[in-house]
Amino acid sequence: MTAPVWVGVDVGGTKVLAGVVSEDGTVVRTARGATPGRRVDAALIEEVLTETVHAVADGAPIAGVGLAAAGFVEATGERVMFAPHLPWQDEPVRARLADRWQVPVVLENDATCAAIAEWEHGAARGAGSAVVVTLGTGIGGGLIVDGHVVRGANGMAGEFGHMQVVPDGLPCECGGRGCWEQYSSGNALVRYARERMGHEPTMLEEASGGRPEQLTGPMVTDAAAAGDLLARAAFTSVGDWLGVGVANLVAALDPERVVVGGGVSAAGERLLGPARVSLERSLVGAAHRVVPSLVAARLGPEAGLVGAAALARSTQLRR
Amino acid sequence: MTAPVWVGVDVGGTKVLAGVVSEDGTVVRTARGATPGRRVDAALIEEVLTETVHAVADGAPIAGVGLAAAGFVEATGERVMFAPHLPWQDEPVRARLADRWQVPVVLENDATCAAIAEWEHGAARGAGSAVVVTLGTGIGGGLIVDGHVVRGANGMAGEFGHMQVVPDGLPCECGGRGCWEQYSSGNALVRYARERMGHEPTMLEEASGGRPEQLTGPMVTDAAAAGDLLARAAFTSVGDWLGVGVANLVAALDPERVVVGGGVSAAGERLLGPARVSLERSLVGAAHRVVPSLVAARLGPEAGLVGAAALARSTQLRR
Repeated sequence: MTAPVWVGVDVGGTKVLAGVVSEDGTVVRTARGATPGRRVDAALIEEVLTETVHAVADGAPIAGVGLAAAGFVEATGERVMFAPHLPWQDEPVRARLADRWQVPVVLENDATCAAIAEWEHGAARGAGSAVVVTLGTGIGGGLIVDGHVVRGANGMAGEFGHMQVVPDGLPCECGGRGCWEQYSSGNALVRYARERMGHEPTMLEEASGGRPEQLTGPMVTDAAAAGDLLARAAFTSVGDWLGVGVANLVAALDPERVVVGGGVSAAGERLLGPARVSLERSLVGAAHRVVPSLVAARLGPEAGLVGAAALARSTQLRR
Repeated sequence: MTAPVWVGVDVGGTKVLAGVVSEDGTVVRTARGATPGRRVDAALIEEVLTETVHAVADGAPIAGVGLAAAGFVEATGERVMFAPHLPWQDEPVRARLADRWQVPVVLENDATCAAIAEWEHGAARGAGSAVVVTLGTGIGGGLIVDGHVVRGANGMAGEFGHMQVVPDGLPCECGGRGCWEQYSSGNALVRYARERMGHEPTMLEEASGGRPEQLTGPMVTDAAAAGDLLARAAFTSVGDWLGVGVANLVAALDPERVVVGGGVSAAGERLLGPARVSLERSLVGAAHRVVPSLVAARLGPEAGLVGAAALARSTQLRR
């Protein structure tokens, strides 16, 4: 008989990515499904999840499933309260899927899952406290404090992207202004480059077919790697703002380590170099403390599902 | 025979305040000593501490002493690393005084002690997680997360005052610019009023003898209570910035409660009213969460010593 498997599922706005994850955090195999967006009903996405989980299990018995959802998950891990790109709003997702699948299910926010993954198996491993900042389209994040994952009273801890860094600054989708993610994120990277295209020579003209609105983050990453000065300046700006916001989190939390993940972190030192400079410059009492190391995440785009599977396993083991 | 007493001591830049504290947080009696400032050597302040602790114990045996120091205390609670107004720099204060007094001694940062006091006996009591913001000359603070006091990797968690809220903003003593405490603190309150004196009619002219440089925070508090419009506007500004910074902390930590203490909080609703408005306006996802209550601290200027005594007691009980 096949040994039971732990499954992690990243439930994002455009796709479902499920993986069988071994105890050491290795992704053994994955399966994908398309999420139909938020205008359809919850039944359809749950159908997609069911198919994807069964596909990835591939006939093996399932020990437990962890769901990493791109939305606000309440602190008890029962409900998705709100998800901008999913049809769930105040839905008791955990119990419904556990009933349907007849296996233990845990539910957690995707950025928190990514933080758990980096802490258990990645760049935050061994740290007593860590801040994990995920730079994607916006900024997500997770917190490890004194050996525990911090969920917050509403399950909303780690919404770093909406800390205000500029009074009356750029408007944000959240309704606020001057949110950190408007200055340091994939969107910020692309905005920086777009605004300067046409004013200086850049490979981004060709990459985007001369249409700034077609420019994407990966195009900026590639151009920077190829030596394009405008693309490099975009990373310097995003990295500088990354360090400013990280300094604020370090002032408040004094973590042992800061891990930066998400798509933008693929640029590695081009992003982290300027971030370290501005972190040291901005951080209070830098002369009297060990400035935390600022390092790249290790688990890449699978961090969410790896963390969800780790959470499912550790939750079961505690029972 | 007299029952042993727990002593808490607030070691500030200008005075030492020691108190015998009962189990329920009541300050039974206090004693004061003058701290000689940082230009003298450590021996003298330790002499003052010894006299003050013995004076307050008043012949009773001492069960333990908690020291709340106005400075950076390392995470192990052994050393004061740096204190702007005290002669200690990288000094093993805890062990030295425990040896000298032959009683158990614990050492902690004063703002962290104030947070412990509010959590054990005051406005944060019963909260699973809380942010305690202390508005004095600057901003200090402490964090309770999931039932634990957060000290940080360097013992420097809670340095909220130096989170940057304005890029290239007002210069700060820490060497940075735009730190939160430049906009929301006793100093910020006084600066706001000073800059506007002479431009509009205000009671502060008389209170300060027509000399803006003589203006103090308590003068602004009194004038605001008496209906002075400029003084009230100063509190509205400081309260507004208080809410902005608290919103950032809530976005990151999602605490159940936020407690505001320190001298400036004596103004009560005049400060907290505007702070609540700007907290709700600035906080991400306010519609999808329980916005934490923002309340005044209860323990007043004795919070530091009460928390230090509570810490001494709980540390002994854990042994």
